[in-house]
Amino acid sequence: MKVLADLCVIPMGVGVSVSKYVAECEKALAEAGLTHRLHAYGTNIEGEWDEVMAAVKACHERVHAMGAERITTSLKLGTRIDRDQSLQDKIDSVRSKLD
Amino acid sequence: MKVLADLCVIPMGVGVSVSKYVAECEKALAEAGLTHRLHAYGTNIEGEWDEVMAAVKACHERVHAMGAERITTSLKLGTRIDRDQSLQDKIDSVRSKLD
Amino acid sequence: MKVLADLCVIPMGVGVSVSKYVAECEKALAEAGLTHRLHAYGTNIEGEWDEVMAAVKACHERVHAMGAERITTSLKLGTRIDRDQSLQDKIDSVRSKLD
Amino acid sequence: MKVLADLCVIPMGVGVSVSKYVAECEKALAEAGLTHRLHAYGTNIEGEWDEVMAAVKACHERVHAMGAERITTSLKLGTRIDRDQSLQDKIDSVRSKLD
Repeated sequence: MKVLADLCVIPMGVGVSVSKYVAECEKALAEAGLTHRLHAYGTNIEGEWDEVMAAVKACHERVHAMGAERITTSLKLGTRIDRDQSLQDKIDSVRSKLD
Repeated sequence: MKVLADLCVIPMGVGVSVSKYVAECEKALAEAGLTHRLHAYGTNIEGEWDEVMAAVKACHERVHAMGAERITTSLKLGTRIDRDQSLQDKIDSVRSKLD
Repeated sequence: MKVLADLCVIPMGVGVSVSKYVAECEKALAEAGLTHRLHAYGTNIEGEWDEVMAAVKACHERVHAMGAERITTSLKLGTRIDRDQSLQDKIDSVRSKLD
Repeated sequence: MKVLADLCVIPMGVGVSVSKYVAECEKALAEAGLTHRLHAYGTNIEGEWDEVMAAVKACHERVHAMGAERITTSLKLGTRIDRDQSLQDKIDSVRSKLD
């Protein structure tokens, strides 16, 4: 089962600047070989369900290992069985309606 | 790694009434033996990370099997390594500040 | 326009214990006269759109005033024009499918 | 109070293809003069709190007017009082940690 996801990891109790923790998650996604695109409020991810979920777990483990004692994450998960769709397909589909 | 989660599964393209799909997810959570509490905009879940994630995947599989061709889910995931905390602990902690 | 909402306010940079900030939001919702129910990962809210949104803004203002320099909030917003529905209706609808 | 937001509007009961509704929201954001960037699972928005919230309300009103009887939206809201930060600042801050 393929999933299009959106991940926003928030380390708590480590101050107001959290970009180094988000960067660590980006590295985890890259090392997992997953298609991913950072935006200003999270990261879009595309891949097989189990691989995406393993990467999300790795993000939590790595951010805890960096010293963040508490993490709260928002994750969106989109699956469909009618047809295959990529992250880019979703953006293209909206943009085509804006012309 | 224990996780406190909040799950909101939204089947798309099956009309505006989706309670039977949400009920199917409740059954999946119950069958998984996970502590869970339905609220009006999702379900709180408490358990080991891998077990919770397996149940979330089962929800998608079962809702697709019921005929929903597309699903979009919002999932919150809270982990902490400083101390153990239950769903009820979180509620009690806020309520104690309201007195 | 009536809205059923789910609010989760996360103050950042104030340590791992945030219940006093969540309690302040509960007070803001109560003072606004809005129907609201705390759960372990947020608060369900029912009311007119503008009143709910004013209360959400008040939450941010009050949590900042308590000293939290950064806040990230997750808000779900459900509206429907086919029929009126309360928070309790949503729960009852799912539960009726579990029997 | 400035806010960095992430908006994901999901019309329910209108089939599995919802891009025309998302496009309508993009138009509402553009007409409001708000900085916004579409990604594959939502839209980043930057602006004053009241203006962003007025635009979110306009999205719901316009999507209902297009015939969607039910909408469920996920909205993230980030505010900070320590310093000014733009959508691009957030992305740049993470990317600088990836080098």
